[in-house]
Amino acid sequence: MADKIKEIDVKILKLLSGNARLTYKELAELLDTTRQRISRRMERLEKSGIIRKYTMIPDYDALGYVHVILGVTLKPSVGVDEVIPVLVEDENVKIVERAIGSHNLVVHIIGPKDMKKLEKIIEAVSRKIPGVDRLDVTFVTDIVKFETL
Amino acid sequence: MADKIKEIDVKILKLLSGNARLTYKELAELLDTTRQRISRRMERLEKSGIIRKYTMIPDYDALGYVHVILGVTLKPSVGVDEVIPVLVEDENVKIVERAIGSHNLVVHIIGPKDMKKLEKIIEAVSRKIPGVDRLDVTFVTDIVKFETL
Repeated sequence: MADKIKEIDVKILKLLSGNARLTYKELAELLDTTRQRISRRMERLEKSGIIRKYTMIPDYDALGYVHVILGVTLKPSVGVDEVIPVLVEDENVKIVERAIGSHNLVVHIIGPKDMKKLEKIIEAVSRKIPGVDRLDVTFVTDIVKFETL
Repeated sequence: MADKIKEIDVKILKLLSGNARLTYKELAELLDTTRQRISRRMERLEKSGIIRKYTMIPDYDALGYVHVILGVTLKPSVGVDEVIPVLVEDENVKIVERAIGSHNLVVHIIGPKDMKKLEKIIEAVSRKIPGVDRLDVTFVTDIVKFETL
């Protein structure tokens, strides 16, 4: 984006990271400025894609779900781009991240607590990824801290 | 929580996962119900902790940051509980998740693009975790899909 990120933008982003439901009015009061300025800055941040999304983090356990992270390392011959579209379409797959380092691909699955059913889902998702060199399966049991900025 | 999760709650949660800034009015219209009912249900979901947080996902790259995930496997002798408080206090550490499976602990760092500075931060965070058996370091380069429910 061509626009420069101003100090006020960073402050707005930090506040929204802590609570994405803050109103323009609340943000204006917290940052000692006007509603108009807040709404103008936020519109820019949204349009430019600096703000990717406003979302809600639930307690998966209380909802009867299990949160599984697949850390995927692909064989050097396999391109991530071939794999991604099929994963994105899968309704059990909630998060797909491209990466470099230990893993090329990070995939989050929200599945049922029933381990037999969960196993089938993890298996089905894994089978959609050809050329897996290493697969790390991690079950998140608690979110202790969650900030985005 | 003692309260049963109703069908309307799940629908509200899914909509908020897609856009946490939807107003009571917008949610009421989308779900063909009243503002009052939406606000009542959301208050319950918030109070009971089913809704952990409303947050904003930024484009880290555009802001000049790098998003690093540390997948930590601790030696069997080390308890996760000893490690967590020190990590939570670290301002470079944004997400801390307890886990079982390949990793016992998932730690997200948001750091500068400058690789020398980033290296120091990753090193400093790693040094706070005693008894690491394996450490997977993954750099997220793009979020392709991000949903929470």
